Amino acid sequence: MKAKEKLIKRSAKGYHICVGLDTDINKIPKHLLTYADPVFEFNKRIIEATSSSAAAYKINFAFYETYGSKGFDSLKKTIELIPADVLTIGDAKRGDIGNTSQMYASSVFEHFGFDAITLHPYMGKDSLQPFMDYDDKLNFVLALTSNQGAYDFEKQKLEDGTMLFQKIISKVVEWNEKGNCGFVFGATKIEELKENISLFRGLPVLLPGVGAQGGSLEDTVRIFESNNHTSYLINISRALIYCNSSEKFEDSVTAALDDYNKIICEIKKSV
Amino acid sequence: MKAKEKLIKRSAKGYHICVGLDTDINKIPKHLLTYADPVFEFNKRIIEATSSSAAAYKINFAFYETYGSKGFDSLKKTIELIPADVLTIGDAKRGDIGNTSQMYASSVFEHFGFDAITLHPYMGKDSLQPFMDYDDKLNFVLALTSNQGAYDFEKQKLEDGTMLFQKIISKVVEWNEKGNCGFVFGATKIEELKENISLFRGLPVLLPGVGAQGGSLEDTVRIFESNNHTSYLINISRALIYCNSSEKFEDSVTAALDDYNKIICEIKKSV
Repeated sequence: MKAKEKLIKRSAKGYHICVGLDTDINKIPKHLLTYADPVFEFNKRIIEATSSSAAAYKINFAFYETYGSKGFDSLKKTIELIPADVLTIGDAKRGDIGNTSQMYASSVFEHFGFDAITLHPYMGKDSLQPFMDYDDKLNFVLALTSNQGAYDFEKQKLEDGTMLFQKIISKVVEWNEKGNCGFVFGATKIEELKENISLFRGLPVLLPGVGAQGGSLEDTVRIFESNNHTSYLINISRALIYCNSSEKFEDSVTAALDDYNKIICEIKKSV
Repeated sequence: MKAKEKLIKRSAKGYHICVGLDTDINKIPKHLLTYADPVFEFNKRIIEATSSSAAAYKINFAFYETYGSKGFDSLKKTIELIPADVLTIGDAKRGDIGNTSQMYASSVFEHFGFDAITLHPYMGKDSLQPFMDYDDKLNFVLALTSNQGAYDFEKQKLEDGTMLFQKIISKVVEWNEKGNCGFVFGATKIEELKENISLFRGLPVLLPGVGAQGGSLEDTVRIFESNNHTSYLINISRALIYCNSSEKFEDSVTAALDDYNKIICEIKKSV
């Protein structure tokens, strides 16, 4: 199934929560530390607890690379566990010159088998092209990110009056020949989201920042739903996967995801 | 030894060539394919052939990640072979929100043990901070890159008349509290290099683009030397490591590096 179809099917069911598997061995329930690969065991339980009503899984490479090849093994095993009809996003934030981006694309899309990736736009079109050449995949390009540092360069005003992140959005919309591009936009930047949602032209948007970073789930959903923009994923990592540290943490995670889905459902009805 | 000291010591000997170990299994001499880890065997021979007169080694993560955990094993073994007095640069082009950048820093600086890294500036100061907190390391931040796509965003003119890459350079100079920042600047952008060299304020500059990408070694060296800017590294990957594909390729690689060093030496004398 194409990446975009997975997104559309889950979104049609009202599922918009992307589960962020940013698994930190220091934060997982202690009873899992007796296993040979505690990170994988934790991910396995989280996936089992959420896969029926998650919209997607986002895995940040940093949390695995920090353990070198052992971490990459946990990452690969984790990906293989995710049901084939759920979108998988490799949050790798890559971007390099052409022949190198090609290698990164082959790593994330082929070796690991992710459906989607996050990309740094700074180096321009030819740095994104090798990823955009995979027409069955999805490429989420960084627009306005969720962190404070987004004000340093992303919001710099250009000579023509637009801001850098707006220029990037409009350029990526133009380059999106295979219909496989989308954006990353911080759910912590609600005013900017409201003002710029039309720029996305309905393309998929991945929104980190709800939960530990303080973004509002309700405000974010309301903006998308009231603009009839259905292709959005709200990522929640820490606030969801570490919501309980007992031996029965899975039940709390399932319940927490259900609660998020109910909130979304209520808002959908009200707009 | 601190990363910066390694750079200074080799530069004082007139060594400015950074050997790019962008090792592609499809391009290495065929006789190495019989080994269990041909990428590592190739790197080992290149390092032996160049370590006495290379200024640094730059290893692009993409070429290893494409083979997953096996690639990471080759990468780690390669790093361990490089003599302790030669600078090692992890060309990873990372940049993420704070807690994630911290994981990347721990991967590149601690797990793999690189002396330096390349970074994407797009997400701003807090995305760079976890790397800048390592005061014995070096952080090469992307300024103007060697590819065509550099014209898409990096050269966008801002409201105040400066270009985005110039704004990034001046901000990083301001943020460089621990004296461990530097820049990546494409050797293919000679006019821009000439016009902007004073912006670097003498900080280390890593220049890809000579060789396969068409940048001129002579022009690049002349600009730095005539500006008394001694802290620069000219990266050569494909044009050096694949200069010969016979069973005795090592001798050609040593000779090619010697030739580059002689050119640099002649220019140093002439300016």
